[in-house]
Amino acid sequence: MTTTLPTTPLIITTLRSVPSFVQGYVRDLRLRWACEEAGLPYEVRLVGREDRESSGYRSQQPFGQVPVLQDGELTLFETGAIVLYLAERSEVLLPTKADERARTISWIFAALNSVEPYVQSLVETDIVFANESWAEGRRVVAMQALKKRLDGLSLWLVDREYLMGRFTAADLMMATVLRDLPDGILENFPILSEYQERCLARPSFKKALADQLKLYSK
Amino acid sequence: MTTTLPTTPLIITTLRSVPSFVQGYVRDLRLRWACEEAGLPYEVRLVGREDRESSGYRSQQPFGQVPVLQDGELTLFETGAIVLYLAERSEVLLPTKADERARTISWIFAALNSVEPYVQSLVETDIVFANESWAEGRRVVAMQALKKRLDGLSLWLVDREYLMGRFTAADLMMATVLRDLPDGILENFPILSEYQERCLARPSFKKALADQLKLYSK
Repeated sequence: MTTTLPTTPLIITTLRSVPSFVQGYVRDLRLRWACEEAGLPYEVRLVGREDRESSGYRSQQPFGQVPVLQDGELTLFETGAIVLYLAERSEVLLPTKADERARTISWIFAALNSVEPYVQSLVETDIVFANESWAEGRRVVAMQALKKRLDGLSLWLVDREYLMGRFTAADLMMATVLRDLPDGILENFPILSEYQERCLARPSFKKALADQLKLYSK
Repeated sequence: MTTTLPTTPLIITTLRSVPSFVQGYVRDLRLRWACEEAGLPYEVRLVGREDRESSGYRSQQPFGQVPVLQDGELTLFETGAIVLYLAERSEVLLPTKADERARTISWIFAALNSVEPYVQSLVETDIVFANESWAEGRRVVAMQALKKRLDGLSLWLVDREYLMGRFTAADLMMATVLRDLPDGILENFPILSEYQERCLARPSFKKALADQLKLYSK
């Protein structure tokens, strides 16, 4: 397992302050975790709401969100793209064999495009818009769609420890996607509960999470 | 501009039959378009509902969806991953300079993770679940969230013909994502209307669309 170290330190941009229920869930967590797994040192740059509306920031992140990664002259956005970029530096995160690499990338996209939208639909009905009159009706179809995806994922993981057999960047992505689920959902999918526990037990995740929480406890 | 031709023909798996309103929108369209741009020949394999529930198919596509790409021994799923895989074969779709390549990949993820979920939310309230009692209330917040993303995208494209300046796989992805919007939405974002028109005017898109439609007109 080898890692190519960058010549300048990586810089991760994230939010200066967030409400307490978001602490530990800001998406720079995925980047921090990837850096820890790959042994890549990084620095953190903090931005506030005004910064994110500026044209300078929009040229780095067109939707005004976080995180952003800077690597020398290069600026990247989207956690999927950044995790893939970091993963290309390290066999821990991305297999070097062409076929395995391509299938790992399939799973990274699957986490973000075939699972996350359904997870976030339930976050909306159960948390963000829980008090809206439409939430209850909407929840029924959101839950049906989510269940289909979680059933498919369970079936895949029934005889696998990780999506690709061994831990890769795809698990980092899937575990953080599942972690956003409202309490009490994943318990109904025991294979996924155990899978998530296995992923989040990794020292690199614990370090990444502790570092994000430390930022907001100051 | 060079393209590396595969040794065996690529095989795209898609649906044997779909309702008429889905014809021209099945997601193999993205793969067909990518193959046309890159000059990669492909064959089509058709599957029905029973095929997609089989364990053999689930081992290729864990969620039982289409498309799937077969390239010799390798089987891939997720349109994002497959388009990226095909794009790596051709400079037409993916710049070879490392920084430009990485930013193009940011935009591919952005189309699928920062724009598509918001487009699909509106497809749900306006089309799929339009008759549900919760659709109207839900539509207000779905539209607000979508507008934010489309505004960000408009701002980026105000002085650019394509996301990366010149056409890449990121535009293929973004244009097909925007194309799913219910009628009458994109008209309110003239920069995006023009951008989409520019993308869909490409002969490769027209060929890909015609070939998909031909399949269902038999």
